[in-house]
Amino acid sequence: MNLIKRDLNHNWHPCMQMKDFETFPPLSIKSAEGSYLTLTNGQKLIDANSSWWCKSLGHGHPKLKSALLKQAEQFEHVMFGNTTNETIIALSEKLAELSPNLNKVFYASEGSCAVEIALKMSLHANYLQGQSHRTKFMALKNGYHGETCLALSASDLGLYRKAYESILQPVSFIDHIPYVLSTEDPLWEDCSTHWPKIEEHLNQHSKTLSAIILEPIVQGAGNMKIYSKDFLIRLRQWTTENHIHLIADEIMTGFGRTGYALACEHATIEPDFICLGKGLTAGWLPMSAVLTSQNIYDIFYDDYATHKAFLHSHTHSGNALAAAIALECFKITEEENIYASVQKNSEYLYKNMQQVAEKTRLLQNVRYIGFIAAADLMIEVPRAGYEIYKNAIPLGAFLRPLGNTIYWLPPLNTSLSTLDELTDITIRAIQKTCL
Amino acid sequence: MNLIKRDLNHNWHPCMQMKDFETFPPLSIKSAEGSYLTLTNGQKLIDANSSWWCKSLGHGHPKLKSALLKQAEQFEHVMFGNTTNETIIALSEKLAELSPNLNKVFYASEGSCAVEIALKMSLHANYLQGQSHRTKFMALKNGYHGETCLALSASDLGLYRKAYESILQPVSFIDHIPYVLSTEDPLWEDCSTHWPKIEEHLNQHSKTLSAIILEPIVQGAGNMKIYSKDFLIRLRQWTTENHIHLIADEIMTGFGRTGYALACEHATIEPDFICLGKGLTAGWLPMSAVLTSQNIYDIFYDDYATHKAFLHSHTHSGNALAAAIALECFKITEEENIYASVQKNSEYLYKNMQQVAEKTRLLQNVRYIGFIAAADLMIEVPRAGYEIYKNAIPLGAFLRPLGNTIYWLPPLNTSLSTLDELTDITIRAIQKTCL
Repeated sequence: MNLIKRDLNHNWHPCMQMKDFETFPPLSIKSAEGSYLTLTNGQKLIDANSSWWCKSLGHGHPKLKSALLKQAEQFEHVMFGNTTNETIIALSEKLAELSPNLNKVFYASEGSCAVEIALKMSLHANYLQGQSHRTKFMALKNGYHGETCLALSASDLGLYRKAYESILQPVSFIDHIPYVLSTEDPLWEDCSTHWPKIEEHLNQHSKTLSAIILEPIVQGAGNMKIYSKDFLIRLRQWTTENHIHLIADEIMTGFGRTGYALACEHATIEPDFICLGKGLTAGWLPMSAVLTSQNIYDIFYDDYATHKAFLHSHTHSGNALAAAIALECFKITEEENIYASVQKNSEYLYKNMQQVAEKTRLLQNVRYIGFIAAADLMIEVPRAGYEIYKNAIPLGAFLRPLGNTIYWLPPLNTSLSTLDELTDITIRAIQKTCL
Repeated sequence: MNLIKRDLNHNWHPCMQMKDFETFPPLSIKSAEGSYLTLTNGQKLIDANSSWWCKSLGHGHPKLKSALLKQAEQFEHVMFGNTTNETIIALSEKLAELSPNLNKVFYASEGSCAVEIALKMSLHANYLQGQSHRTKFMALKNGYHGETCLALSASDLGLYRKAYESILQPVSFIDHIPYVLSTEDPLWEDCSTHWPKIEEHLNQHSKTLSAIILEPIVQGAGNMKIYSKDFLIRLRQWTTENHIHLIADEIMTGFGRTGYALACEHATIEPDFICLGKGLTAGWLPMSAVLTSQNIYDIFYDDYATHKAFLHSHTHSGNALAAAIALECFKITEEENIYASVQKNSEYLYKNMQQVAEKTRLLQNVRYIGFIAAADLMIEVPRAGYEIYKNAIPLGAFLRPLGNTIYWLPPLNTSLSTLDELTDITIRAIQKTCL
C-alpha cells in the first residue's frame, strides 16, 4: 500500500482538517538537513517555518547528533523527582544565566505544560501567601499559549476555543495593543497614546488578578503581530506596583528568534516567570521549562508537613537525552554567534519580504523583528494562505501562512542565498495563486 | 562546587518538597543499565519503580539505542501537521492493532496532554453532534490523570488539587469501587453487590455527561489499588447504553504492566478513547498518544469551511526520534515475549511481597496484578514510606512508596534474582525504619 494511504488510515494530524488531505496529501519526509527537508520523491523544500518555529539551528546539526549519542551511552532517562545528574545541572546553570533573578528551573516536555505550570505556580504562590482572592488571569487579545485547557483559556483565538467554552476559565483580554511594523515605529519607544485605555482596563481587575501572561514583543499564532516595547515596560511596571505576576511565554520568541536570548530583553524587563520550549532543544526533542525567582521558590519551601510543595510532575521532566541536546544548543549558539548573526541578517530578511511586496503588489503591513518577517495578503481568493502553501511546494518551499498572513521564520542559521531562493519562490507562489 | 549544591541552586524538582533535600540530597545518577541505576559514588540501585513507571524494558536497551541512532541519521523532527514519514506510519499501524476498532492515532508528548486531548475530543464530538448539553466529565474516586488543569480536574487526589480549586472543573467522582487484592477475589468476576449504588450515582448524571475517564484495573498514584474487571464491564455497558464516552487512561497500565498490551483486555472491553504514554517509548523519550475510533474521527471530518477540525497541536506531536524508539519497543516486546513473561512471573513477584509481609508482619492488603505488587504499611512512624525510601538507598534499591503504600513496579524484563535481591532489601529497609 502506498505511504500516503497508510498514513491516512491511521494518523490524525495535529491542527489539520483531515479532509484537506484528499486533495493535497501530506508531504512524505525522507530526510532533513540544515534549512532543507527532502521528500521521498527526492524533492527539496526550504523549511520556511522552522517546523512550527522550533528548528532554530536547522535540521540534523552534527554537534547535536553527537551530544545525543554521548548521553545515550550513559543513560537516557531516570525520573527527576529524587535524582539529579551532571547534564541537567549544567543545563539549569545556563538557563539561570538568561535572566538576572530567575534562577530556578522547573522542567516539562510540552510548551503548553510550561504555561500551565507558570499559571499554577502563580495561583499557588498567592494561595500560600493568604492572597486566595487572587484567582484570575489576564492575557493579551490575539495571544496564543497552547491548547491544554488552562493554556487555551488564556489564548484568544476564537476558532480554537469555541467548542470548549463550557470548560474554559474566564480570562480577561487586554485590548488596544500598540502594534508596530518594526522597531523604527515611534510607538515602539512610546505608547503613551494607547496606555490610558489599557490602564483603565487593568485597574478594573487589579484586586483579583494572580498573573498576566503574554508573548513578549511578537504574537506568533496571532499572525506574527509585533508590539511596542514600551507597552511591555509599562505592563511590567503596573504589575509590579499591583503585586501581580507577569508571565512571559517565550516559547516561540526565546533563544534568538527576535535577536536576543529572550524577547523581554528588547524592553529590558524581567518577568516573574518565563516559559521556554521549542528552541530550547532546537526542535530535536520535546522539552520545556519554567524559570522563576528565588522569591517564588521560597514561598513553597518549608517543612514537608506544612504541605506547601508544588505537587506537579511530568514523567519526562528533565529527560536526560533532551537535556543533553539543550545544553549543546547553548554551546552552538555561542560558537556560531547565532544572536549576532540574527541581528545582522534581520534587515536582509525584511528587505527580501519588501521585495515580495513590491513585485507582487499584494502584501500590506510588511513587518519584521529578528529572524521573523511577515505581511498580510491582499488577495480575494478563498483560503489564500492555504493556496499559497500548496503552490509553494512544487516550487521548493514549505511555507505555511497563518490565515491570510504570510511569514518567514526560518532556522536562525539559514544562509542568505537560501533566503534569496525563498524570496523568489514566495513571489512565484503568490503570483500563481492570483492567476 | 559539588554537584548537589549546584543542583539545589537551580533545579526545582517535580512533585517534591525541596526542603527535604536538606537532610537527604538528590541521588546523583551516573549511568543506568537494565533494572539498575549507578550513582556517581559507584553505588548500584534497583530501579524498583521503573523511574515513575515508564522504564518498562529497563535502562539502556541496546536495540533502542540503535533505533535512536538510525533515526537520527535520517532526521530528528519535522512538524507533523502537514507531513508524514515511514517511521510514524509504521508506529501508528502497530498502535491501531492494539484494539479492534480504535484505528486512529493522535500524538502528543506528555501523558497529561493525552488526557486533555481525549477529554477535549469527547466534548468537541458531542458539540458537533448537537449534544452541547453534554459538557460534564466523571472519573473514579482515588483516580489520577495528571496535573495540567483539565487532567487535574479529573484527578481525585486532594493534596494535588487544594490550591487550585478555584480554577478546576466540577467533576463528579464514582464511589463504592469494588477493590480486590488479586484476580482470585470473587469481586473480580462479579461486583453485583457494589453496582446498584454506583449505577444510582451514574444515573443522576446520565444526561449531562460527555465522558467517564478512568485508569482501567489499577489506580496508580492512588496507592496501586486494583479493582474488579466486572466493574469495568458494567461501566462500559452503562456508558454505551447512555451514549457517554469511556476514556481509558492506560498511561501507566499499557504495554504489559498488567500482563496484557492493555489493562482493558482483562475485561475484554473496548473504550472510545485510550490514552498511552510512559511504556510507549519504554521511558526513553516523552511521547503520548490517544487512540480513537473511525466513528469519532468521522465527526470531525468535513470540508474546511465547516470549521469542524480538531484544532489541537503540540510542537513535537509525532516526533520522529520518539517514534523510532516506540516502534522498536513493539519489536522488542514481541522478540522478548514480554507479555508472556509478565504473566509467568507475576505470581513470583506477589509471593516475594508476601514474604516481605510474613517476615516483617508490618504489611496488610498485599495485592498484585501483572508486574505490580503492593501493600499498605502498618507502621506508626511519621512519613513511614519516605523513611523506607531513605533506608533502602544504602541497601541498594530505589523504592518510592506512595504515602504508606509500598509497591514494586520494576522493569518488565527484571530477572528473578533481582526480584529476590529487591525482596531482601525491602525487608531490611522496613525493619530498619521500625527500629
